[in-house]
Amino acid sequence: MQQLTSYLAGSWVMGHGKERTINHAITGDVLYQVTSEGLDMAQAKRYAIENGGKALRALTFVQRAAMLKAVAKHLLANKESFYEISAQTGATRADSWVDIEGGIGTLFAYAGMGNRELPDDVLWPEDEMIPLSKQGGFAARHVLTSKSGMALHINAFNFPCWGMLEKLAPTWLAGMPAIIKPGTASAQVTQAMVKSIVDSGLVPQGAISLICGGVGNLFDLLDEQDVVTFTGSASTGQKLRCHSNIVARSVPFTMEADSLNCCVLGEDVSPEQPEFALFIREVVREMTAKSGQKCTAIRRIIVPQAQLENVVQALKAKLEKIQPGDPALEGVKMGALVSIEQRDDVQQKVDQLIAAGCKVVIGGKADTSRAGAFFPPTLLLCQQPDETSAVHELEAFGPVATVMPYQHAEHAMELARAGQGSLAGTLVTASGDIARQFILGAGRAHGRIQVLNQESSVESTGHGSPLPMLVHGGPGRAGGGEELGGLRAVKHYMQRTAIQGSPSMLAAVSKQWSYGAAVQENPVHPFRKHFEDLQIGESLLTARRTITEADIVNFANLSGDHFYAHVDKIGAADSFFGERVAHGYFVVSAAAGLFVDPGVGPVIANYGMENLRFIEPVKIGDTLQVRLTCKRKTAKPQKTAQDKPVGVVEWAVEVMNQENQSVALYSILTLVARKHGDFGA
Amino acid sequence: MQQLTSYLAGSWVMGHGKERTINHAITGDVLYQVTSEGLDMAQAKRYAIENGGKALRALTFVQRAAMLKAVAKHLLANKESFYEISAQTGATRADSWVDIEGGIGTLFAYAGMGNRELPDDVLWPEDEMIPLSKQGGFAARHVLTSKSGMALHINAFNFPCWGMLEKLAPTWLAGMPAIIKPGTASAQVTQAMVKSIVDSGLVPQGAISLICGGVGNLFDLLDEQDVVTFTGSASTGQKLRCHSNIVARSVPFTMEADSLNCCVLGEDVSPEQPEFALFIREVVREMTAKSGQKCTAIRRIIVPQAQLENVVQALKAKLEKIQPGDPALEGVKMGALVSIEQRDDVQQKVDQLIAAGCKVVIGGKADTSRAGAFFPPTLLLCQQPDETSAVHELEAFGPVATVMPYQHAEHAMELARAGQGSLAGTLVTASGDIARQFILGAGRAHGRIQVLNQESSVESTGHGSPLPMLVHGGPGRAGGGEELGGLRAVKHYMQRTAIQGSPSMLAAVSKQWSYGAAVQENPVHPFRKHFEDLQIGESLLTARRTITEADIVNFANLSGDHFYAHVDKIGAADSFFGERVAHGYFVVSAAAGLFVDPGVGPVIANYGMENLRFIEPVKIGDTLQVRLTCKRKTAKPQKTAQDKPVGVVEWAVEVMNQENQSVALYSILTLVARKHGDFGA
Repeated sequence: MQQLTSYLAGSWVMGHGKERTINHAITGDVLYQVTSEGLDMAQAKRYAIENGGKALRALTFVQRAAMLKAVAKHLLANKESFYEISAQTGATRADSWVDIEGGIGTLFAYAGMGNRELPDDVLWPEDEMIPLSKQGGFAARHVLTSKSGMALHINAFNFPCWGMLEKLAPTWLAGMPAIIKPGTASAQVTQAMVKSIVDSGLVPQGAISLICGGVGNLFDLLDEQDVVTFTGSASTGQKLRCHSNIVARSVPFTMEADSLNCCVLGEDVSPEQPEFALFIREVVREMTAKSGQKCTAIRRIIVPQAQLENVVQALKAKLEKIQPGDPALEGVKMGALVSIEQRDDVQQKVDQLIAAGCKVVIGGKADTSRAGAFFPPTLLLCQQPDETSAVHELEAFGPVATVMPYQHAEHAMELARAGQGSLAGTLVTASGDIARQFILGAGRAHGRIQVLNQESSVESTGHGSPLPMLVHGGPGRAGGGEELGGLRAVKHYMQRTAIQGSPSMLAAVSKQWSYGAAVQENPVHPFRKHFEDLQIGESLLTARRTITEADIVNFANLSGDHFYAHVDKIGAADSFFGERVAHGYFVVSAAAGLFVDPGVGPVIANYGMENLRFIEPVKIGDTLQVRLTCKRKTAKPQKTAQDKPVGVVEWAVEVMNQENQSVALYSILTLVARKHGDFGA
Repeated sequence: MQQLTSYLAGSWVMGHGKERTINHAITGDVLYQVTSEGLDMAQAKRYAIENGGKALRALTFVQRAAMLKAVAKHLLANKESFYEISAQTGATRADSWVDIEGGIGTLFAYAGMGNRELPDDVLWPEDEMIPLSKQGGFAARHVLTSKSGMALHINAFNFPCWGMLEKLAPTWLAGMPAIIKPGTASAQVTQAMVKSIVDSGLVPQGAISLICGGVGNLFDLLDEQDVVTFTGSASTGQKLRCHSNIVARSVPFTMEADSLNCCVLGEDVSPEQPEFALFIREVVREMTAKSGQKCTAIRRIIVPQAQLENVVQALKAKLEKIQPGDPALEGVKMGALVSIEQRDDVQQKVDQLIAAGCKVVIGGKADTSRAGAFFPPTLLLCQQPDETSAVHELEAFGPVATVMPYQHAEHAMELARAGQGSLAGTLVTASGDIARQFILGAGRAHGRIQVLNQESSVESTGHGSPLPMLVHGGPGRAGGGEELGGLRAVKHYMQRTAIQGSPSMLAAVSKQWSYGAAVQENPVHPFRKHFEDLQIGESLLTARRTITEADIVNFANLSGDHFYAHVDKIGAADSFFGERVAHGYFVVSAAAGLFVDPGVGPVIANYGMENLRFIEPVKIGDTLQVRLTCKRKTAKPQKTAQDKPVGVVEWAVEVMNQENQSVALYSILTLVARKHGDFGA
């Protein structure tokens, strides 16, 4: 029998001790033995930190993003090998697509975010400078730096690829190495993907480790520079969260547990409306996808009393046509549960729900005569959901859901909240008012809520799909944690520190210039410099220009903007300004006239502007002068050797009047040519 | 003897059971008895939620901000009464200023943030719409809604006012009621302030409750809609964090524990430089302010080996002049510790540090002959900080610090990190490079780092002061939590939910329009409408304008911007654009010309622009058209009846070309008159 090896301290290693067995979910054949007993976790942690952590921290965010992208491309090219192994877990091709390609898509998404939004540096200035004093000599910035430990990812069996990759992407982007402990029942799929990543040579040694089996004494080795994320059962998560080391060292611990997610049919929806069919389709899909083994699966179907019978009949009609089977066979839409243990657990929970008063509409009994772990789609009916706490607390982790009636909108929210915290909920309604009220009443119990109507249904990714840009997690029973959510997830693996000091000191620390920091003036115009030659804080103080009545008149005529504050002496006298003032758009246009160097040069384009504020009005006769300062630089990776190498340069613009008052402050974004590309000499 | 009563369920109530005694810190006189035994915590929680929570959630963020401001004004008007009681705790006037006026200032700061940055609504759309589909029919937004439970604030004795107010401000802004449990040793100061708030009638019944004494069975009553914040000793915090209910219900638990904060002297600083004197001043102030009873106090003084003797002598010379005494007496700069128990605890810790190998430079022994809880400024010297773990782990919570040498910059960071997580650190250096390296090496162990040099020192608020805009908290030993940090703190008391749906549905939920949502067109120009009459999604599609060569020439001449891409046919042909294009500034100017309604009306001023992106170039002969849509409205409270009532309206602007492509997207910010003010009929 083959043992599923672990990858620790740069080697594939075998455990020695009591083994668990992985069986084929469809055939029941024994596939692997699993144990990690006897493996040296202390050495594994040290290796991950001293090799992987060090190497990752040496890369800039933009470089880490490029690494993610390369890994994603590599995995995509090799995806078929993962589908093959995934089939052993009872998954259909569609189920595996979510896991494998959904996971790879998450890597791509984080690569894109890192490349677009993060600095080409190892330190992440999170927000803009915060002034803390009247004269401006003391200020602060929040910065994020990489933690120096390792991330321990404890994953669930249901998404062996996605579950790993959705955590790996932000971890690596943050500059941390990861030790991955997959759910044992499907660890062979995770192992195959880890092998593929390791063999690709695209990530530094030690950036990824894998434990097939238990985590041994790893928890005893944790300290405040480590991070733990846990996905799985609430009871295991709660035990780990109280580990003495987690508590004493305040180790960040993110937990994501299965919850009793609901799908609510709005009071406005009757069977004639398209939303009724959408509701039925969504529930059936979320009950049966991955054979219901999804932490986001719909377990509670909450419908208006008046529609209960219609819903029950419609669901029954659809579910009758879905029988579990071998996904390799033609026409099989739902596969097996991952293991016989899992099947028996589902049976036990269904029996308990029945004992609590639920009636079986369809399904309810596993076919124990088959070698595979098959369980049929099971719909239960609970007429008294207020008195039947089991339907809100007891989860059968398979293709099982309970339908229940509500009496009025507030009651529907109460039932939704009765899950005591959910990862996801869906409300099917055509009414914006009903949606807003539902979110005000039930949002606090949910990490994500989909509002499904005809318009959104065309492109909806569905109730059950966590997306890289959206937070995944939920309060209470769902574990109280948050994953994904765009760059939020990256911050989970970093330390935020408020840095206080003079603006010049903050500029030196963050490599970003802010108002009040020292500037360097230089006889060469900054628009004549390539990306590499521009220095943060390099600044141009322009010539001056007096704004005349003729300028305002001409600008009004040319733009067509004859707003009274600019052209109507009488109206302007009564206005906020007390007299005619120059157009704000003219002020920024004249500013460009003062700071732009006109000839062909390395500055390619001005593609945007941020945070423009008009501070003081510009009156006829005022004289303007502009300071243009290089604020932030981000080199962009070239996609091909043919692309022109460029970087983004953000410039701070301050327009001042003759009293040295700021009249306008803003940033402009430019593309600037780099002298040297990323492809060779 | 007077019992310090609690305020629960809308009444001042007395406990019945074993009492603790509060003595005057200076005279030793017995002042109060404290117990909360027998008080009905279940009723208190219910009352807070059903009255305070309900009333607070009914207010918009802008209204809650106005409430905070009113409370802050009220407390400021009554501040002298708090100073009087605060003196009982051994505090000097300066110590009490930090506590009382620093706390009130935090309320003002949150009032300002709420008014400026949060919506005039009960739901907080956190970020902009996130597109999730190609055709644009499915998108998402993260929104924050108020939790429906209560916030339990467990505070430390050292800042009885600030410790309460820095948590109350974000809690109330979030729409949650608070139950406050102050540190018993100074609970009379908190109680006085709570009384003043209750008596003011400025906050709803149930919005504030107070427990003088223990929290009884409150932890057994917690659920996922509640929040707990804890400030105090690590051991108590760790115990509470593992309470079965906190764990099983995933109750958010923020912990802030005392940590062994450091002050590091940069290698670049010699005694001749101004930074040397700044270092000495900062250490002495942070050792002696509040008699060293600050969770941010400097406990570890880390200096270059070469400067060790200079630093020791300079500190000794300063500390010799500071003797603890009654702050009521002339010339007394340092008061007493809060209690005899505290004094004895400090003595015990100092003795342990000495036993571990530290030498006493000055101080070290309490004067036990006096009735007050006096302990002298105590400087210890540790020559072998790598071998003396006690100096990094054992905290004497009084005017006590240990000086230790480092050998090189990396060693200084190691010693800084040896505290295993700190709230605050200070680095004194004149070098930006040294500062950046220190933050890259030690930032991960700190929640806040001050870089002190001559420039920042003039206005610095000091190593020990948490500020409303900056995060307060730290990893590891400091508890792993985060408070303050501007609006971040408000989010601790809310639930974030990702809402998915069609753009129109998201607009209905968030009351903010985004691209892709339905618009309403109307024969009346939106600039002719008052704030109240404008609808979210109200939209103007303008007439068209063809951009000609003459326009570009005229704009170049008027603005003075003769950038080659606009005026040089040869240069432009080789450019990114391939031919001459209109100035971006002209595109936005012409757009204004198309959408502005020129006459006097309710639109008062355009004061800013956000997120401008030029998507497609505008070429000679292109024809532009603009859509202007009301995106977001925020009514602003009037300060006085004389002020013109106004609101902020954000408009989404989309400039399109003849192909219906977006050429520019941005938002403009306008002030719009309201018909009705906040004062009277």
